[in-house]
Amino acid sequence: MPRTNPERRRALTDAAIALLVDEGVHGVSHRAVERAAGFPAGTAANYFPRREELLVATAHRVVELHLADARAATEASVAAAPVGLDKLDQRGGLDQPGGLDPRADTLERMTDLLAASLLDAATRHRDRYLAIAELQLEARRRPALAAALAALATQASDLTATMHADTGLDVDPAAVPTLVLLYGGALLTLVTGAAPADAATTHRLARAMVHGALAPDP
Amino acid sequence: MPRTNPERRRALTDAAIALLVDEGVHGVSHRAVERAAGFPAGTAANYFPRREELLVATAHRVVELHLADARAATEASVAAAPVGLDKLDQRGGLDQPGGLDPRADTLERMTDLLAASLLDAATRHRDRYLAIAELQLEARRRPALAAALAALATQASDLTATMHADTGLDVDPAAVPTLVLLYGGALLTLVTGAAPADAATTHRLARAMVHGALAPDP
Repeated sequence: MPRTNPERRRALTDAAIALLVDEGVHGVSHRAVERAAGFPAGTAANYFPRREELLVATAHRVVELHLADARAATEASVAAAPVGLDKLDQRGGLDQPGGLDPRADTLERMTDLLAASLLDAATRHRDRYLAIAELQLEARRRPALAAALAALATQASDLTATMHADTGLDVDPAAVPTLVLLYGGALLTLVTGAAPADAATTHRLARAMVHGALAPDP
Repeated sequence: MPRTNPERRRALTDAAIALLVDEGVHGVSHRAVERAAGFPAGTAANYFPRREELLVATAHRVVELHLADARAATEASVAAAPVGLDKLDQRGGLDQPGGLDPRADTLERMTDLLAASLLDAATRHRDRYLAIAELQLEARRRPALAAALAALATQASDLTATMHADTGLDVDPAAVPTLVLLYGGALLTLVTGAAPADAATTHRLARAMVHGALAPDP
């Protein structure tokens, strides 16, 4: 049953990501993806009878890749933290003079985490997010694609909130949607080339997002 | 000399904006814009011999419309401010108990200004910024369009800094590039429909941008 071969399915959607980047949404067709993936004619239609299904599957693939990386980055950040911040209370560290300022430390660790994530997304994984940008614009003309992207965004956002919680960082859950929107917007700006995707710019952006989204209420 | 008729030129680029929104960059051709603008065949090629020139002119038109609105909003904000903030020193208001806190007031006025601008851009003028988003993605495949967009972005950014100065708001010039990037990213996110373009969301975003970009150095 070739229709259920997950490797072929991934190869087809990965080819679609590359085509979205190189040629735009117009370049994504059954014929183009199966040719790019090195499969015989008819393969793509076997997996995705309609072209829109191919586009939706490509969006799913990007989110799958994105979440796998986000999970890895969260785990690395937790491993790198000298002490779980949620353990600080038990150690009494907060009340000791010279101890960590938990708010400043949270802001700094969040900034570093988001800056690294933004830089990685805008450089090493730029194609992915360019592909999503192409799909987002196309979605305005395709309600089924729009619905799929909205569902994926909600899922990614929920998982992001869970991962934030896993880092032990004390981030107000009410701030997460703002952070997610600012991050997504900054990433769009970086991948389209409107700003240089370098460490200084991503750190400056991450710092502003974190400080801004977590600013105390007026 | 029809080639130099600015009204026809505007009509053709306005038609291109609408086509970018409705059909994407693929829908913009000489024939499509002159038909949409109600002009005879051959008109568009008269103004823009190559299709890329039509795309560049469309980007120019969006920036022209954008700056006209930004100028109007700045003037309205200056007119609405009870006192020019740059006049406060002379009035001695800062040292009086119960006087304005100049930093809090700057943050609040900047937030209101950006929130209103963001809401307006993402609703009333959504087509414009969707058109720019389409052109930005296309620019990755067209170096001449990319160069034109980069030049326009610099010009718009410089004028934005001048207009900020005109409001009398004491905004650190070093913060402006971050603010411009966050604003541009948030706008992209709003116009593509990834977030609801309502007053609550735009205010939340504007507040985070302003507080974040103007956060004191660590």
